[in-house]
Amino acid sequence: MKATVNGQSRDFRTVTFDARSNSVVLIDQRLLPHEFKLHRCKTFEDTARAIADMIVRGAGAIGATAAYGLAQGARAFCGSGAGAFARHVRSVHRVIRSARPTAVDPVNAMNQVLEAMKPGANVPERQALALAAAEDFANEDVRHCRQIGLHGRKLIRSGMTILTHCNAGWLAFVDYGSATAPLYAAQQQGKKFQVLCDETRPRCQGATLTAWELAQQGISHRVIADNAAGHLMQRGNIDLVIVGSDRILGRTGEIANKIGTYTKAVLARRHKIPFYVAAPLSTIDWVTRRGADIPIEERNGEEVLGAWGVDVRGRRRWIRVANPSSLALNPGFDITPPDLITGIITPVGIVPPGKLAQQLGAGFQRLRR
Amino acid sequence: MKATVNGQSRDFRTVTFDARSNSVVLIDQRLLPHEFKLHRCKTFEDTARAIADMIVRGAGAIGATAAYGLAQGARAFCGSGAGAFARHVRSVHRVIRSARPTAVDPVNAMNQVLEAMKPGANVPERQALALAAAEDFANEDVRHCRQIGLHGRKLIRSGMTILTHCNAGWLAFVDYGSATAPLYAAQQQGKKFQVLCDETRPRCQGATLTAWELAQQGISHRVIADNAAGHLMQRGNIDLVIVGSDRILGRTGEIANKIGTYTKAVLARRHKIPFYVAAPLSTIDWVTRRGADIPIEERNGEEVLGAWGVDVRGRRRWIRVANPSSLALNPGFDITPPDLITGIITPVGIVPPGKLAQQLGAGFQRLRR
Repeated sequence: MKATVNGQSRDFRTVTFDARSNSVVLIDQRLLPHEFKLHRCKTFEDTARAIADMIVRGAGAIGATAAYGLAQGARAFCGSGAGAFARHVRSVHRVIRSARPTAVDPVNAMNQVLEAMKPGANVPERQALALAAAEDFANEDVRHCRQIGLHGRKLIRSGMTILTHCNAGWLAFVDYGSATAPLYAAQQQGKKFQVLCDETRPRCQGATLTAWELAQQGISHRVIADNAAGHLMQRGNIDLVIVGSDRILGRTGEIANKIGTYTKAVLARRHKIPFYVAAPLSTIDWVTRRGADIPIEERNGEEVLGAWGVDVRGRRRWIRVANPSSLALNPGFDITPPDLITGIITPVGIVPPGKLAQQLGAGFQRLRR
Repeated sequence: MKATVNGQSRDFRTVTFDARSNSVVLIDQRLLPHEFKLHRCKTFEDTARAIADMIVRGAGAIGATAAYGLAQGARAFCGSGAGAFARHVRSVHRVIRSARPTAVDPVNAMNQVLEAMKPGANVPERQALALAAAEDFANEDVRHCRQIGLHGRKLIRSGMTILTHCNAGWLAFVDYGSATAPLYAAQQQGKKFQVLCDETRPRCQGATLTAWELAQQGISHRVIADNAAGHLMQRGNIDLVIVGSDRILGRTGEIANKIGTYTKAVLARRHKIPFYVAAPLSTIDWVTRRGADIPIEERNGEEVLGAWGVDVRGRRRWIRVANPSSLALNPGFDITPPDLITGIITPVGIVPPGKLAQQLGAGFQRLRR
C-alpha cells in the first residue's frame, strides 16, 4: 500500500527481498508513524534480530520475513556439500525461530520453504527453490489479504462509520492487511466512509499504525480513546466493527485478539452493530478445544504506566504517566466468544463463527493451498 | 486524607482557608502525581485563576474553593459602606463564577455563602458570616463524603477486587471523595481488598490521581488499561465496580460521568457484577428530563493524540503518540442508563436508580441540609 517518502506517495510492501544484495528489506515499524525508513537486513542474523527487535511485527509480516530470512541464509552458503548445506540451513532455521520463540508464523513459513527446497538436485537448485518458495509465501499472503478485502468490502456502504481496534493492517502482513483489507477494497470501488481507530492502549497501535496507514491511503478517519466507542455506539455513530485476530479457534468460533476487542464486541452486541473478524485461514487453530485454554500473555506493566511518542522537537521519548509508586496489570489479549461475532471474513468468504468447522474444517487443507 | 511530604505522611484537605493571611490553600493538582505542592491564593483573583487553571478540579473541591474565594473577597473589603460592600461582593461573585463558566458547583456554593451573610448587621459581621458559611460548606462536603463511605463500605468484603474509573477521590472533593469514600471507610474497618484503577484515557485521572490517592493511603491497587476490564471480568477477577458521577438525573436514574463509564457498566451487567455510583445529593439534577438532553462536551482532540507525563529526568512533558496528520474525536462524558446501575451510594443511603424521585425527591430539600 501507499507511503509518502520525500513528498512522493509510492507503493510498498512491508517485507521485500533484494535478490542482488541477498537482503531482506523491511519497513522499520518502530519508527512509525513519526518516521518512515526502510531497514535492510544484509544477513540472516540481521533478519532474525529485526524480528526480535520488533522492526517487523504482525503474523503475516513476520512469517514472510522468516521465509525470506531462511532463503537469505540458504543463499549465503558457499560450497557444494549437501550435508554441510543441510546443517547450515538447519542452523539458520534455529536462529530465526529463536528470534520470537512463541510465534508460530515464522516456523510455519520456514517449514514451507524447507519443504519446497527438497526437490532440488544440488545446492544452487535448492537455493533457487528456497527463494522462489519465500516469494510464493509472501505473494500468497498478499493474495489472501486481497481476497479478504474482496469479500469484506460488500459489508461497507458509502456514508458508514466503521470502528477498528489495534492494527491488523498491511503493516502486520505483507500488503492490504486483514481488518483493513475491506476498507482498502471499498475505497477502490469509490465508496466514501469514515473509520474510527481505537487508540488501543497500552501500545497504541490504532493511534499510531492504523491511523498512519489510513492517512497514507487518504481514507477519512479519527482516532478515539478506547473509552469512547461505547458512547459513540449509544449515540448511533458507529455502523460496523471490523477487527483482526491473533488466533481463531476452529472448533468453537472463539477469537483471541488484542486486549479490548472483547469489550468492543460486547458493546456492539448491545447496540445491534455488526461485529466482524477478518483473518487469513492460517489464523485458525483447529487443535485448541476452548478459549479458556489459551494462555493470556501478561505483558510488562511499564506499557500501561507510560507512553511512547515524540516530544515537541520530534524526539522519540517514553514518559511515565501513572503515579510513580503504582504498579500495573497488563493482559495483552482477550477472548471473544462466537455469540458476539457476526462473521469471520476469510479469503474464501464470510463464515459464521459457529460454522467454521462445518464450512472450512473438512476442506481446510485443500482450501489453504 | 494522607499525603507524604518530605518523607512524612500527614493529613490534608484538598482546599483549606488560612484566616490569618486571608488565603485559600489548594493542593496543586496539575503537578500530581509527580509532585506534591500547596498553592496559596492570596487574593480572590488568585483563587478564581486557580479554578480556571485547573489547579483545583472536581465538583466538591471547586465548590468549596469558590465558597472560600467569596469569603476571601468579602474579607478583603476595606470600608464600612453597606452599598459599596454589596457591589464589591457581587463583583467577587462574578469574577469567580467566570473562572469555570459551565460549572454549577461554584455558583451554588457562593449563593449559599451570600445567603448566610444576609443577617449580618454591618460589614464586619457579614465578613465573619461569609467565612463561617464557607467553612460550613467545606465541612458539609466532608461530612457527606464520609457518610457515602459509611453506607458504601457495607458492599466491600475482604478479598474483593474493586474496579474504579477516573478520579472521584478526595482530590475531587474536600476530603474522602465519593467513589473512593467506601474504600477508605472499609480500610478503616481493617478490611483487606484490592483496587483496579482504569487509567481513564485520555486524561488518565485513574492512573495519576486515583492511583496516587490509594498509594498514599496504603491501599493495594493496580493500574489497568481501559481495554483490560472486560477481560478481567470475563476471567472472574473483578467483584464490584464503584464510580463517581458528574450528574445524576433524579427523574430517570441516568448518570453522566467520565467517558468510558458506560462501557464498564455494560460489561459489569454482562458478567453480573454489581455496579454502583457514589455521589453527594448535590449531584442530582431534578430538572433535566432525559440523558439524551445532556450536552456531551466535545473536548480538544490533542488529549487523545498524546499524553502528559514525566520523562526519565522527571521533567513534565507532553508527547505526541498518534500519527502526526491524524485528528481525534474526543467526547468527554457518557450516559449510563439506570438498568445497568445496581445502586446509587448517597450520604443518606444506597438508593436504586429508579427510585431516586420516590426515595429522595419529596424530602430532597430537607435531606440536603
